[in-house]
Amino acid sequence: CKRSGLPLVRNISEIPQDNYGREGLSHMTVAGSLMHGLKEVEVWLQTFSPGTYTPIHRHSCEEVFIVLRGSGTLYLAADSVGKHPGKPQEHFIFPNSTFHIPVNDAHQIWNTNESEDLQVLVIISRPPFKVFVYENWSMPHTAAKLIFPYYWDEQCYKEPPKDEL
Amino acid sequence: CKRSGLPLVRNISEIPQDNYGREGLSHMTVAGSLMHGLKEVEVWLQTFSPGTYTPIHRHSCEEVFIVLRGSGTLYLAADSVGKHPGKPQEHFIFPNSTFHIPVNDAHQIWNTNESEDLQVLVIISRPPFKVFVYENWSMPHTAAKLIFPYYWDEQCYKEPPKDEL
Repeated sequence: CKRSGLPLVRNISEIPQDNYGREGLSHMTVAGSLMHGLKEVEVWLQTFSPGTYTPIHRHSCEEVFIVLRGSGTLYLAADSVGKHPGKPQEHFIFPNSTFHIPVNDAHQIWNTNESEDLQVLVIISRPPFKVFVYENWSMPHTAAKLIFPYYWDEQCYKEPPKDEL
Repeated sequence: CKRSGLPLVRNISEIPQDNYGREGLSHMTVAGSLMHGLKEVEVWLQTFSPGTYTPIHRHSCEEVFIVLRGSGTLYLAADSVGKHPGKPQEHFIFPNSTFHIPVNDAHQIWNTNESEDLQVLVIISRPPFKVFVYENWSMPHTAAKLIFPYYWDEQCYKEPPKDEL
């Protein structure tokens, strides 16, 4: 969380990476809010080993993916009008593909390729990341659990001072 | 500018590219405001042939670069307090490096490598892109020329309806 003293031009291969307690994940904040002082966008590099997946989740920020290598499946409960996400659509994602997640649509990324890592560049707006997580596609929207700060932001997040009044 | 009917997952190698009148440039809007309906972020893939450069310019959005291949020079007039940008700092940019441009700092990207293309992924906030362009580093900030819509947005940009009152 040492923001001062960082060089302006940084070598991505020297940026710390971690799985933040999720086996099979590598996450790196390439350019971030808490780490680098950005206010409007944040960029991550993530690698999912075969069989690894994100939680089912939604967020009110925009999110763009670029698939650098590997392939997998995007599960997306688009235009959910009911009380829960419901059965998601399945979209094949492949090397050199791009897609974005409509704001507040529940989704999940899954490396469904049995032999290759899935590596993606992820861009979000309105950092730091605020996420609502579902246990399954039938969980009511109102029961989804807010996780904030998100795992990779925990270490650098400082609670704003409390207003005593 | 046909937004409806586009697949959710798009093959980047099939996205149209153009130099928009700037010889030596290839620009592709990977995920954009006018083209794909994003409101908060936009992603470009740009390639500069040897000797090619951007104008000296500034903008009030955030901008993150990721250098995919090649190398070059970032000229950055950081923390400009005078009436014009002044002599910029020079930063070497290299493969797999990342940097971001502080909001409103005048800057220029130059492929100063004589033999290799410079390819960058660019992320901006607050699309569509609004740019103030300088003829040189001594031009007063107040004389910088607003270009909006920017070249690659011209075709898809529609003027908002005029208020007759």
